[in-house]
Amino acid sequence: MQPLGRGYNRRCLCFDLESRVIPPDKLRSVEILPSGPHCRNAEVVAQLAGGEKICLNHRAPWVRRLVRFILEKEGQRWPSG
Amino acid sequence: MQPLGRGYNRRCLCFDLESRVIPPDKLRSVEILPSGPHCRNAEVVAQLAGGEKICLNHRAPWVRRLVRFILEKEGQRWPSG
Repeated sequence: MQPLGRGYNRRCLCFDLESRVIPPDKLRSVEILPSGPHCRNAEVVAQLAGGEKICLNHRAPWVRRLVRFILEKEGQRWPSG
Repeated sequence: MQPLGRGYNRRCLCFDLESRVIPPDKLRSVEILPSGPHCRNAEVVAQLAGGEKICLNHRAPWVRRLVRFILEKEGQRWPSG
């Protein structure tokens, strides 16, 4: 679940994948690391509102929908800012 | 172009947006920050292979295609790993 470390160039970062579905309002950020010589699969690391980092399954349809949703959401009116 | 800092909870992170198209093989990671009270728009911060961080336009079709591409690319055979 927790990413292993910041050694992006050496090996896969994610050791275990989170199975819970994360609602968009609990997300602070989503980081996507492409596959490459260091790791055969793309990796998706979500940082939650509380600061916790978890690894998501990049193949899961809900993860792909989540990424699309946060990319496309815009222009909403928020109470401040 | 450069993200302003790590103050995700206070304001928009991106000051200026990169206009160059970044090829997927130059990317180390892509971080997506949802819009929210701190910032009206979703923000996309790409880290390049050399370590440089740049902000991309989340509305640009090529950025959305790039994110989809790196999420979906998998199972390729790399020289090592």
